[in-house]
Amino acid sequence: MRMYDVIEKKKMGHILTKEEIQYMVEGFTDGSIPDYQVAALLMAIYFQGMNKEETLELTLCMARSGDMLDLSEIEGIKVDKHSTGGVGDKTSLVLAPMVAAVGVPVAKMSGRGLGHTGGTIDKLEAFEGFSTAISEEQFIKNVNSIKIAIAGQTANLAPADKKLYALRDVTATVDNISLIAGSIMSKKIASGADAIVLDVKTGSGAFMREEKDAINLAKTMCDIGNGYGRHTVAVVSDMNQPLGLAVGNTLEVIEAINTLRGEGPDDLHELCLQLGTQMVLLAKVAETEEEARAMLEETITSGSALKKLREFVEAQGGEGKYVDQPELFEKANIIEPVKAPKAGYIDHIETEEIGFATMVLGGGRETKESVIDLAVGYVFEKKLGDYVNEGDTIAIIHANDEAKRQESQERFLKAISITEAVADKPALIKGMIK
Amino acid sequence: MRMYDVIEKKKMGHILTKEEIQYMVEGFTDGSIPDYQVAALLMAIYFQGMNKEETLELTLCMARSGDMLDLSEIEGIKVDKHSTGGVGDKTSLVLAPMVAAVGVPVAKMSGRGLGHTGGTIDKLEAFEGFSTAISEEQFIKNVNSIKIAIAGQTANLAPADKKLYALRDVTATVDNISLIAGSIMSKKIASGADAIVLDVKTGSGAFMREEKDAINLAKTMCDIGNGYGRHTVAVVSDMNQPLGLAVGNTLEVIEAINTLRGEGPDDLHELCLQLGTQMVLLAKVAETEEEARAMLEETITSGSALKKLREFVEAQGGEGKYVDQPELFEKANIIEPVKAPKAGYIDHIETEEIGFATMVLGGGRETKESVIDLAVGYVFEKKLGDYVNEGDTIAIIHANDEAKRQESQERFLKAISITEAVADKPALIKGMIK
Repeated sequence: MRMYDVIEKKKMGHILTKEEIQYMVEGFTDGSIPDYQVAALLMAIYFQGMNKEETLELTLCMARSGDMLDLSEIEGIKVDKHSTGGVGDKTSLVLAPMVAAVGVPVAKMSGRGLGHTGGTIDKLEAFEGFSTAISEEQFIKNVNSIKIAIAGQTANLAPADKKLYALRDVTATVDNISLIAGSIMSKKIASGADAIVLDVKTGSGAFMREEKDAINLAKTMCDIGNGYGRHTVAVVSDMNQPLGLAVGNTLEVIEAINTLRGEGPDDLHELCLQLGTQMVLLAKVAETEEEARAMLEETITSGSALKKLREFVEAQGGEGKYVDQPELFEKANIIEPVKAPKAGYIDHIETEEIGFATMVLGGGRETKESVIDLAVGYVFEKKLGDYVNEGDTIAIIHANDEAKRQESQERFLKAISITEAVADKPALIKGMIK
Repeated sequence: MRMYDVIEKKKMGHILTKEEIQYMVEGFTDGSIPDYQVAALLMAIYFQGMNKEETLELTLCMARSGDMLDLSEIEGIKVDKHSTGGVGDKTSLVLAPMVAAVGVPVAKMSGRGLGHTGGTIDKLEAFEGFSTAISEEQFIKNVNSIKIAIAGQTANLAPADKKLYALRDVTATVDNISLIAGSIMSKKIASGADAIVLDVKTGSGAFMREEKDAINLAKTMCDIGNGYGRHTVAVVSDMNQPLGLAVGNTLEVIEAINTLRGEGPDDLHELCLQLGTQMVLLAKVAETEEEARAMLEETITSGSALKKLREFVEAQGGEGKYVDQPELFEKANIIEPVKAPKAGYIDHIETEEIGFATMVLGGGRETKESVIDLAVGYVFEKKLGDYVNEGDTIAIIHANDEAKRQESQERFLKAISITEAVADKPALIKGMIK
């Protein structure tokens, strides 16, 4: 087999065989196929696409390029949840304790944030002492005993995807549905879950700005998961504004705790119930959506989810007292209102820019090496569709440096558009693929 | 400027600016832009194309990446002629002495053959002692004194094209009209001619199999030449069978000599007159096609073109006696007829395969390092549209090795298709772009 022929075949719009995809992924990973040939193939894939079978095969080859985790020692049906990333997305922090509290085993691999989106691990590190660097043995033990453990991704999870993504990133070949779906799903499949719930974000703060693209991505990922025999469902949810009110690591953890207390913002609460319902159903802990939803609501009213969060934080070395007394979290030095420059309805939030404004404060990573400031960020008081008078507080900024506060706040205000005409509030759930 | 943005822009179908094309060519040539990014851009160009202005700019950037020859010391309008390559194409050997004999300065850079097509330099080396490795000074002196000199391409002619072509060759991005035209014309422009006549081949032995692709390529090359102020015309000519009867270096030289004596095959004679007419007109040595054609025909009847060939060969160190006594050329050991396996009309010749059959005999290069056997090849007796009885001679094979003869002859016969139905002779001239 020659890589030249594989490129030519895809260029002409033909379907690659399993053997050809395998040959390409293995050759690229072991270095026997040069990156310039793979770059040409990636661009040909951008133009000609890949069908269901090609996409599944690519995903599986990437998943098998490294360790395939074996979670068979964990009792019950392991359900993983993955979000395509957004601003203010703290669902995992709320959802994981909720479903664990009803008996769904949560055995989760999480990542750190990069660019305008935050990562679950960064947020969890707001709990003093908390660590995701736990052994596989400890990980399995924790899930079996308290139903919940979250670990950082091991270095050798789908290395082919890592290498391929790095090449796509510099050759303008990131934006292809099959390649995006394959990249996400290869890691999910290698992580060993029995079933997967996907939260695909769409809007101004999401990778998929257009709803139709997000739905297409959701379908493609479900096809991959189900094609491999891993029951996969996807919720397509709104990211035209931050989820909830808080943006920034510690601020989001506080909001997650409030939500587990039944005092969280409606959108975050509702999305967690929607995603949680699917997880509980896939884990076969409930039989109907109504039953699943009632069980999850009960974890909040009874306080069992909050208790589960404390148990989980402590099991991974973190200080549990913060769960009961979130006022103990370290605060930023500068806490000030960001005021509306004019009166009107908020009709657009350039959400990606809100993420970058938080990064400017030190709350996000510009590069993988950046050290982040957990305390900084924004807490919104007004969101899409709300009316503001000139001088009303739109959000509270939390900063540790005056120069950064100024730069960030300017960027923040530029991202908020206010008009005279009445503006709509966007629907939270855009679609569901089962 | 970032290469990423250049790739993304072309991927989206937008037009690249001069600065962007310049940045890409310079960066790729000096190594500051990695080949994987250029490979992705090339594939995006394959799908999105380049317009007239982009194609011209790419060509000029590649031409300027190395030496730009200055032929201003040569008197008169220098007209270069270039063929896109075919089997049995010895037009330069006939044409150059003819136009030089009427006073058109021929200052030509030629290449060696590779794959199924031969090269002018290889053929000229059939003259014992002949060398194209002459100094620039000698080159200019020869053109001024005898109107003709042919040199090998210098190492530093359009190095960007050389590097880009090598990358296209392994990334399945050769077959794009703009890139093909740019590659050819960058070298022509760097070679310093004032005007250019192109012979674009089409058919089973040509790079452009389809006539419409050949016409498109011819137009694109004329646009480039004329866009740079170099008057360029193109003749699109048939390559559905070898040009003339002889295929193989020495055999082609003998046929060229016969043609200069007025005893050559009709198609070769006619194509040389057609191309020569355009050269004479561009050189402003004649005013009408009729006048130009008559002047050229006179060089054959008077013997002045044959005399010019001898003069030219001797000026570059070759043995002139071969021109008058071609029977002195070294012959192959095995000279045998290749017989028709059945009766009928020859309705198709897979001409590329005839080139490969000659390569098998040792008459062509498989790699750049191959040493070629000048004496071997084929001389056709029957061509497209001719009727043969079973056992009639289709061609005479000239070989120096019995095993190679067998292998080559098998391949030769497979390339010739004979049917009962009367078959047409193809038209020689398919189009003319002025």
